[in-house]
Amino acid sequence: MDIRSLGDRILKGERRALARAITLVESGREDHRAQATELLTHLAKSNRQSLRIGLSGTPGVGKSTFIESFGMMLIEQGLRVAVLAVDPSSTRSGGSILGDKTRMERLSREKNAFIRPSPSQSHLGGVARRTREAIALCEAAAFDVVLIETVGVGQSETVVSEMSDLFLLLLAPAGGDELQGVKRGIMEMADMILVNKADGDLKATATRTCADYAGALRLLRKRPQDPEGFPKAMTVSAVEEHGLEKAWAEMQSLVQSRRESGHWDANRAAQAQYWFEQEVRAALLARLTTPQARTDMAHLGAQVRTGELSPSAAAETMLASLLPR
Amino acid sequence: MDIRSLGDRILKGERRALARAITLVESGREDHRAQATELLTHLAKSNRQSLRIGLSGTPGVGKSTFIESFGMMLIEQGLRVAVLAVDPSSTRSGGSILGDKTRMERLSREKNAFIRPSPSQSHLGGVARRTREAIALCEAAAFDVVLIETVGVGQSETVVSEMSDLFLLLLAPAGGDELQGVKRGIMEMADMILVNKADGDLKATATRTCADYAGALRLLRKRPQDPEGFPKAMTVSAVEEHGLEKAWAEMQSLVQSRRESGHWDANRAAQAQYWFEQEVRAALLARLTTPQARTDMAHLGAQVRTGELSPSAAAETMLASLLPR
Repeated sequence: MDIRSLGDRILKGERRALARAITLVESGREDHRAQATELLTHLAKSNRQSLRIGLSGTPGVGKSTFIESFGMMLIEQGLRVAVLAVDPSSTRSGGSILGDKTRMERLSREKNAFIRPSPSQSHLGGVARRTREAIALCEAAAFDVVLIETVGVGQSETVVSEMSDLFLLLLAPAGGDELQGVKRGIMEMADMILVNKADGDLKATATRTCADYAGALRLLRKRPQDPEGFPKAMTVSAVEEHGLEKAWAEMQSLVQSRRESGHWDANRAAQAQYWFEQEVRAALLARLTTPQARTDMAHLGAQVRTGELSPSAAAETMLASLLPR
Repeated sequence: MDIRSLGDRILKGERRALARAITLVESGREDHRAQATELLTHLAKSNRQSLRIGLSGTPGVGKSTFIESFGMMLIEQGLRVAVLAVDPSSTRSGGSILGDKTRMERLSREKNAFIRPSPSQSHLGGVARRTREAIALCEAAAFDVVLIETVGVGQSETVVSEMSDLFLLLLAPAGGDELQGVKRGIMEMADMILVNKADGDLKATATRTCADYAGALRLLRKRPQDPEGFPKAMTVSAVEEHGLEKAWAEMQSLVQSRRESGHWDANRAAQAQYWFEQEVRAALLARLTTPQARTDMAHLGAQVRTGELSPSAAAETMLASLLPR
C-alpha cells in the first residue's frame, strides 16, 4: 500500500481513502500497525482539529434519530460531519450498533457525512485505540465535527469522554424515580444533558425531566473553566428537529469559552497524555496474554491453588520468564 | 541470618522470632526478599491454617476495644490470637493504627496474643503482600485466629477481604439515614455485620440499627455456599463484653459449613490465584516506576502533550525501551 498517497487522498477529504485508512488502523496485523503509524505520523502534520463530540445514551432514547437530525442540521450549515461508534459489546450483541446504515438513511447519503460502524472487537482497549486513530484520520480529512457515539456499556463512557472535547448525554423523558438510573459519575462527565422526545404526548414529561436534571446538575461542582450555567440540561426533539439549533449554539458558546480560556488546548494535551500512559500500561499487561504466558500462568496458577507455591514465589518465577534481565 | 533456625523458632510459636520474620518480609532490600522467600517456602511445609478474620470499621466504632474484648475471649478459650493491621494511609496519618499498643493493653500482655502494627508504607500493593506474608508467618507460628484489621481507606477492604476466610464489618449505632453511608460493595463483602456499642444509652439505637442492616443484607443476593441466615447482622458490646460469644459461635458455624461444603479450600485456592495474578500485574507495571522509566515517560509525555508525537507512537517508543526484544 502506498501510504503517502493514501495520506494525500485523506487530506483532500476523500471518504473512500478515509474508510480504507480506518480499516488499516483497525487491523491487528503487525505490518498494518507499522503502516498505520506511518500514516498517522504523516497526517499529524496537517494540524487540523475537528470538534469532537462524545454522545452517550441508553438504547431507546432515540440516539440514531438524534445523530441523523443533528448531523443533517450541521450539514445544512455547510459543515462536514463524521460519526464513529464505540461499542465494546458489539461482538457479544452480534453486530455493530452502527452496522445498519439505514438507521441514518438521510445522513448516510450526504457527501459531507461519513458514518463508520463500530468494529467487531470486544476489547475496550483495542476499541479505544482504534477510535482515537479514526478520530485523527477524520480530523486530517477535514471533518468539522466528529460525533463519537457510545451505548454506555461498562467503562465506555469514560473512554469516549476522554477523547472528546464535549460530552453529551442524551436521555429520555422519565418519571422522577428513574433519574436515579443515571449514575453520578456519568452526570459528572456531561457538558450538556439533552432530554430527547420533547414532542407529542411526551413534551410535558420531557420538560419536567429536563428541570429535574438541571437541578441535579446544579448540585454538582461547577467546573472552574466553564461559563455560568454549564453543565446545562435542555430539551430537544430529534423527530421534530426542534431545539437542535439552540443546543448547537450552546455547544459553540461553550467551545469558544474553552478555547479562549486555554482549556481546550490543555484538555487535549491532558487527554493525549492519558492515552499515552494507558497504552503503555495496556501493552505491558498484554505480555500476559501471549500463548506462552497464558500457559505459564495456568501452570503456576495450578501450583499456587494447591499451596505448592506461594503467590509471591510463583509471581517471581513468572516475571523471570516475562522479563529476562 | 540463619533462616532455617529462625523458621524452626517460628514453628515453635516463638513471638520474638515471628516479629523478626515480619520485619524481614516488610523489608524492601533485595537480599531480605530472597531470605523472606526462603523462609516462607520452608514454613509452607507446616501446612498450618489459622482462621483468618478480616475486620473493617470506620474510626469511632470501637474497633480496638472490640479486638481487645474479642481477642481476650478467644484467649480465655485457650486459643492463640494474632492481630495485624492493613492501613495504606499510615504514612499520611503519621503513624500506624495499631502503633499504640496501649490501645489493647490487656491483649498485648497475653503470651498467647501477638499484635503487630501496620508498617509505615503507603503503597497498598506493598501492604497487601506484607500482610499476606505476615499471615503466613502467623499460621506457621500456630496462631488459631489471625485478625486482620483495616481502617477502610480506599481499596483496603477489598484487599483484606481477599485474604480473609471471614470478613466482619463493625458498625456503630446510627440513625436510618446514616445506613446509606455504608457502601453496597462493602456490605456485599461482609459475612457478618456487628453493631457495636449495644450498651447504655445506645442499646435501643443499636438494636434498631442492627435490624436495619439485617434488612439491607436480606436484599443482597444470598451466597449459595452459605447456610440460611448469612450474611448476618448482630449487636455486640465490646465494652460490656456482651454478644461476643454468640458472634464467635456464629462465625464457627459459618466456618464449619464452609469447610464441609469445600468452599473453604476453594476460596483459599481462589485467593492465592488472585494474589499471584495481582503480583504479576503489579510487578509488570512497576517497570514504569524506575527512575529511568519516569524520565522517559516525562520526556515522551511532553512531546505527546504538544502533539509532536501521537500517544500510540510515544507508547511504542516507551515499550521498546522497557521491553527490549
